[in-house]
Amino acid sequence: MAISKASAKWSGTLKEGSGTMKGASGYFDAPFTFVSRFEGGTQGTNPEELIGAAQAGCFSMFLAAQLTNAGHPPTSIETTATVHLGAGPAITKIELVTLATVPGADAQLFAEKVAFSKQNCPISKALASVPELTVDAKLA
Amino acid sequence: MAISKASAKWSGTLKEGSGTMKGASGYFDAPFTFVSRFEGGTQGTNPEELIGAAQAGCFSMFLAAQLTNAGHPPTSIETTATVHLGAGPAITKIELVTLATVPGADAQLFAEKVAFSKQNCPISKALASVPELTVDAKLA
Repeated sequence: MAISKASAKWSGTLKEGSGTMKGASGYFDAPFTFVSRFEGGTQGTNPEELIGAAQAGCFSMFLAAQLTNAGHPPTSIETTATVHLGAGPAITKIELVTLATVPGADAQLFAEKVAFSKQNCPISKALASVPELTVDAKLA
Repeated sequence: MAISKASAKWSGTLKEGSGTMKGASGYFDAPFTFVSRFEGGTQGTNPEELIGAAQAGCFSMFLAAQLTNAGHPPTSIETTATVHLGAGPAITKIELVTLATVPGADAQLFAEKVAFSKQNCPISKALASVPELTVDAKLA
């Protein structure tokens, strides 16, 4: 159906080394280090941040499709993702918070489409092994 | 242990709309559309490309840690990821191809650490629901 390509390079040891992750599209190419991944350092990204962006993007796009199919194309859907990396290390929780502007949609229809999108968007399905995914979604 | 944040915005319908995905770090902020996700369009990224970059980055960093712990810190580990989005839509397969420069490491040790990293890196564990993950790894 569709193929996407990306790449990464790591040089050196875990703690003193450094790396980059980039998409074949050319739209991102970002550095990462032990500090930017595990110690809150701001000089780079990390794999979990990319996972959060992918989850937020996929959920928002999928929800837009569901609302459009129900006769209510959204003006905008904005989602933030918080990804928790716990012991293991392993991703233990992903929290989504969504604010949507959807002319004509009522709260019940919106809640139904949010629940369906949470379960069925492709990235949710790929990340189904993550123990917890929460979605707090509101109509603007 | 660590928290990462990201966000996305989608405006409009599935096919005519457009979106962006970005990391709170500020190191990436990239557009995506139906065409850049499902039809091979090159004017943007897509969630699967971010997933591929995260998987490639995490695997490379984790493998570097394993090799360092075994007494062979790598000079570099380069990994490409190909992510297949099939019917559903759902991610059906992720293929990694790795080329590593690791002074002093023999093929058996390297193969053991590759296999361990494939199973245990945090992003592999998060994506365990993806039906197939392959790794083709070689020492330079």
